[in-house]
Amino acid sequence: MTGSSLISRHLSLITKIRDVLANKGIDGFLVTDITNVRYMTGFTGSSGFLMINEKRNIFFTDFRYKEQAEKEIAGWEISIEKGERQKTVINTARTFNINRLGVEASITYEFYKKLTRKGIRLKPVKSLVEEMRKIKDEHEMTLIKKAITRAESAFRDIKPYIKAGIKEKEIALRLEEALKKRGCKTIPFDIIVAAGRNSSMPHAKVTERKLKAGDLVVIDWGGEAGGYFSDITRTFLIKGGNIDRKCEIYSTVLKANMKAIASIRDGIKSKRLDSIVRDFIKKAGYGEYFGHGTGHGIGLSVHEAPHISWTGSEVIRSGMVFTIEPGIYITGLGGVRIEDIVMVKPDCPIILTSLPKELEIIN
Amino acid sequence: MTGSSLISRHLSLITKIRDVLANKGIDGFLVTDITNVRYMTGFTGSSGFLMINEKRNIFFTDFRYKEQAEKEIAGWEISIEKGERQKTVINTARTFNINRLGVEASITYEFYKKLTRKGIRLKPVKSLVEEMRKIKDEHEMTLIKKAITRAESAFRDIKPYIKAGIKEKEIALRLEEALKKRGCKTIPFDIIVAAGRNSSMPHAKVTERKLKAGDLVVIDWGGEAGGYFSDITRTFLIKGGNIDRKCEIYSTVLKANMKAIASIRDGIKSKRLDSIVRDFIKKAGYGEYFGHGTGHGIGLSVHEAPHISWTGSEVIRSGMVFTIEPGIYITGLGGVRIEDIVMVKPDCPIILTSLPKELEIIN
Repeated sequence: MTGSSLISRHLSLITKIRDVLANKGIDGFLVTDITNVRYMTGFTGSSGFLMINEKRNIFFTDFRYKEQAEKEIAGWEISIEKGERQKTVINTARTFNINRLGVEASITYEFYKKLTRKGIRLKPVKSLVEEMRKIKDEHEMTLIKKAITRAESAFRDIKPYIKAGIKEKEIALRLEEALKKRGCKTIPFDIIVAAGRNSSMPHAKVTERKLKAGDLVVIDWGGEAGGYFSDITRTFLIKGGNIDRKCEIYSTVLKANMKAIASIRDGIKSKRLDSIVRDFIKKAGYGEYFGHGTGHGIGLSVHEAPHISWTGSEVIRSGMVFTIEPGIYITGLGGVRIEDIVMVKPDCPIILTSLPKELEIIN
Repeated sequence: MTGSSLISRHLSLITKIRDVLANKGIDGFLVTDITNVRYMTGFTGSSGFLMINEKRNIFFTDFRYKEQAEKEIAGWEISIEKGERQKTVINTARTFNINRLGVEASITYEFYKKLTRKGIRLKPVKSLVEEMRKIKDEHEMTLIKKAITRAESAFRDIKPYIKAGIKEKEIALRLEEALKKRGCKTIPFDIIVAAGRNSSMPHAKVTERKLKAGDLVVIDWGGEAGGYFSDITRTFLIKGGNIDRKCEIYSTVLKANMKAIASIRDGIKSKRLDSIVRDFIKKAGYGEYFGHGTGHGIGLSVHEAPHISWTGSEVIRSGMVFTIEPGIYITGLGGVRIEDIVMVKPDCPIILTSLPKELEIIN
């Protein structure tokens, strides 16, 4: 993105916040969640916050990020905070003539109390920026697609190493290296390579275990581009042993994955999407072995709204990007998970991940 | 650590919590901070919480971590949360006959409100577990030392690559790989390799810039062992150009580092320690170029209490482990930071980091 189109993107985000101030009964808004700060400003550092009112919008960070902020941020006043954060917030709210300051409901209870003790009137507002983040714009889509391309291309590179005799850890190390070489500045989460018995733990840690005949191998990894993440899972089977039941589980998970994707449309409830997957797996006789959610939004956070689960009450809308990742995990036998990333369009979903997902039995 | 000594460690931590319940006016305590959960139980997953009263102590996680929790956790009842977290908390508080539940002040405002809306009496308690975490026991010291050894040995491996012509990014990649090969399961933070102009940004991102003659090169990295972290910075100078001022800055930072370490003793205030460094750098004429804190505690978090800065009001005690990391950063010229990890002992501090810190001018 060029400098000027970045500025206009940021200004339009600021306008969105300004547009809802009055509705929320506030005349200023404080953004403390660092990922929301990045979303609003493009700032990539680890410390900073924002204050916005009708007329002014200011970005605060500390000394360590002074130069970086000046390089990265456009469309915002920049200021360096020197003392305790609550004092900076209070002083700025006074300068801005803010009567009632909206704060993010994700603020810690402790910081909320510190601010109220200073006599400022606060109103917690839930998910204001998070709601904006749910719908991805073109700039964001480009980066998410890039994060997927990097993840998939890195995976193709290391794919030949997935075979009997190699350690889980070795695969994970090679994959991480390949991701970094493709330009991923960070790795969104610890790569999962879980083989055999380990594969029945949906969030297994990588171990020294060697892949062996009959193993189900779950690999869950992600890439990054410009701060945006991808998150993909594929499961393989190492040839050998009695594999009938493993193939049946795989086929059930794959069907659940495809059924869910086929059901995605603008207007469907996240809970409904989850129940399509859950009911299908239950009918196949594996209900008790699928205990996690069906998927999650992805963007600047690996897990963000919408949450596709039985507790979710969100409506799926065009422009959302999320994972679909059913799984079946049987202690002692192993697990299968197949995770894709989809984007909702008015007519039909677009599957952004392109790696094959038919069962591959590795020789 | 053997299984039984781990159990006895966990039981003694639980007892510490129980011992203060009455003082705080609560008859139960909820631990939601995931690092505190790890500290109390040894659980390495990303989702879980704890509830403790006089008689019972229970660990909750979700389906994804069922098997892992059963393997990792000893001394706790284990339960799997199925619905919304606030419901699980409320139901457990009722089962436990808790009248007033202590919650961590780091809880989000949103979750606090959700709990109060359900009619439960809450009392936020500040830093209960964090205070315990400040003083490291033998088990923790072993892991921190291991995290340092891994970081230093990985660094020695890649040290020959630090020379003119190599890219910042290449050094960072090699260092990360070396850390992983030594057994670090995670990397505590994005490695900083900042050369030349980039080195004046204390938290610079790695770039494609090649090291060249006259560059100051700041390298800030850390290792991991059993969930505990290390955090070290060394600065080098690439031979060439006019280096007098750079050498002077280096020498100032080194003296500040050594002065601070020499001043550490049980009973000194963190603010005092910071001012020793700050005043020294100021007198040398570089006051405005040192804007960050002098150091921070390290353990299961890279940055934890005590915070050695001008806003800190903590008293340094025997058993604490923290960094000392003065720096000088001059836009256009470059920066220097020298960061060690020290442990406070009753008589004198022990410097745990052992890499040389005299200025090395690389040919």
